[in-house]
Amino acid sequence: MTEETRVSKDGLVEFCVRVFEKLGVPPPDARVSTDVLVLADLRNKGSHGVARLPRYVDGLRKGLMKPTNSAKVVHKTETSALIDGGKSLGQVVGHMGMQLAIEMAKAHDMGFVTVRNSNHYGIAGYYSLMAAEEGCVGLSMTNAAPLVVPTFGRDAIFGTNPISISAPAEGDPFLLDMATSVVPRGKLEVHDREGKPLPPGWAVDSRGKGTTSPKEVLQNLATRAGGGILPLGGEGELYSGHKGYGLAMAVEVLCALLSGSPSALGTYVDESNANISHFFGAISVEAFRPLREFKRDMQSLMDSVRGSPKADGCDHIYVHGEKGFSAQRDRLKHGIPLGPKVAESLKKIGGEFGVSWVA
Amino acid sequence: MTEETRVSKDGLVEFCVRVFEKLGVPPPDARVSTDVLVLADLRNKGSHGVARLPRYVDGLRKGLMKPTNSAKVVHKTETSALIDGGKSLGQVVGHMGMQLAIEMAKAHDMGFVTVRNSNHYGIAGYYSLMAAEEGCVGLSMTNAAPLVVPTFGRDAIFGTNPISISAPAEGDPFLLDMATSVVPRGKLEVHDREGKPLPPGWAVDSRGKGTTSPKEVLQNLATRAGGGILPLGGEGELYSGHKGYGLAMAVEVLCALLSGSPSALGTYVDESNANISHFFGAISVEAFRPLREFKRDMQSLMDSVRGSPKADGCDHIYVHGEKGFSAQRDRLKHGIPLGPKVAESLKKIGGEFGVSWVA
Repeated sequence: MTEETRVSKDGLVEFCVRVFEKLGVPPPDARVSTDVLVLADLRNKGSHGVARLPRYVDGLRKGLMKPTNSAKVVHKTETSALIDGGKSLGQVVGHMGMQLAIEMAKAHDMGFVTVRNSNHYGIAGYYSLMAAEEGCVGLSMTNAAPLVVPTFGRDAIFGTNPISISAPAEGDPFLLDMATSVVPRGKLEVHDREGKPLPPGWAVDSRGKGTTSPKEVLQNLATRAGGGILPLGGEGELYSGHKGYGLAMAVEVLCALLSGSPSALGTYVDESNANISHFFGAISVEAFRPLREFKRDMQSLMDSVRGSPKADGCDHIYVHGEKGFSAQRDRLKHGIPLGPKVAESLKKIGGEFGVSWVA
Repeated sequence: MTEETRVSKDGLVEFCVRVFEKLGVPPPDARVSTDVLVLADLRNKGSHGVARLPRYVDGLRKGLMKPTNSAKVVHKTETSALIDGGKSLGQVVGHMGMQLAIEMAKAHDMGFVTVRNSNHYGIAGYYSLMAAEEGCVGLSMTNAAPLVVPTFGRDAIFGTNPISISAPAEGDPFLLDMATSVVPRGKLEVHDREGKPLPPGWAVDSRGKGTTSPKEVLQNLATRAGGGILPLGGEGELYSGHKGYGLAMAVEVLCALLSGSPSALGTYVDESNANISHFFGAISVEAFRPLREFKRDMQSLMDSVRGSPKADGCDHIYVHGEKGFSAQRDRLKHGIPLGPKVAESLKKIGGEFGVSWVA
């Protein structure tokens, strides 16, 4: 029970699709929702992968998420759209939002879509990557439950509010996908499990002062007792924590404010309403210059950064997305590793719904 | 000679405009170039203010910058434009770029402009603010001479590549204006002048390892001997330095790659060519929801963040732009403080061109 198991991508996809279907999600939507989760596992972002399936099962059962896509385009112009997600699955709404942005970019060079009343949409990079694959610079952002404390504050007011930007190259695209906090909550949980103190500059206690106790921070966050994770740049202004805080706020502007949604503090106010909002953008490269030339120059920039001299003791400079694409290739070949706890929770769900486990 | 002098905004503007005119810059362009510089001083960003006038004088004399606006729109659609700056003054090109983006946003909801072959454009926030004043979310970015070392690297490959995002509110707008490095070079210079060590995590030496010596870093940068400033998030990945590095690269994508310009390493290759590139965006709020409602909600979010509980020992949570607007109000009333060295260098320029000094 303690070792990691490897499951095939196709097997894992089939399992998740069938679970979603048992919960009333139509096949194409079950497929999209699964794709987003499994891509996270393929890219070694397990915290956003199938480990979250129990939360989706729970959300669908409790009515936090609607099984059928109830999202509607409320307002649209040639290059902009406002979508009300109708409490549908975040992945389904997200996919619909980015697809619309890409269609507008193809017809009118740009497409920007803001989305309200949605749910957790998984990895931000899934959507920006959709745009890069269609010859666009892709932009994907979402707000999230409050975990992050603004500079000089003591209460968590912002989500980890990720920003993803992707751009096509000759080989793998550039794919930045970053929380605007210094670290995601998952890293605090790992330190807690391993009984390790946090590095100073990751989190603050309920009085807004730096703490190295992961247990204290996680408990405070769970009870909304104050404190939380610090924005990218850390505590105060010495390492420019105000910049991470500003980026978190910019994400709220584009997701929540532009869509007329509450910001992080208004999310998950009760179990029937997540109120998560997103923002998607697609900018057609061809609106500015030939795609082929752009891809060539993009590849050349990425190669030259990677090829530049390394710091003492370092043998690799990574370009954003690279680690994920390399994990993806490995896992497609050798299977996706799942920890024993995750595998167990999925088997349990399979048992409940009469869906047989992968292997 | 050691004390600070205060000069009136109008006097300083008149002085700078006349100097630019003496160098062959037509009156409206002299005015725009001056406005960008003086706004930096008003907002307490002196490093980007009139202290740089000598560099512009030098650039215009040496042909790095053209006195008359030679910028041309090379390619245009309803929502996109590519501008070749023709080596004109960065402020003139920047103003033209953002004005075009705003016009497109008014007519077609969005406007995105990428610019190649320009010069240093001053504070990024000047341009994003132009958009916010016209009911848009504004976006302004520029690349710059290489000063920033990518995670695990040892050579400066990126500029401090600032990102500015602005959004209208009922009162002062939200105005994020941040270098994607942990600090700007100016902060290293201050530590050097004051003989203080750098906080660890700001910079690396020529072998790519952390250093606290500002002198060493500044010398290495001046001679391109390796090392430089760290991206937002600091050294390695512990505090997510790879995120700041990713943002710096995203700025290159939108400024340099989209405009077909060299990235930071190709800037200032000789004294006659800066090769700086910019990116401007204007997204009309009305494309998504009524501006009045957006402004109301924006104000309410800013007020609620500011009004949230403070960390122990802190009495104020700042919203982005707030410090600058407050300095601006003070300095419009009481004058702009100039250090003795800056005042002296301006007087010297005035002497050379026969332009009488402010007071």
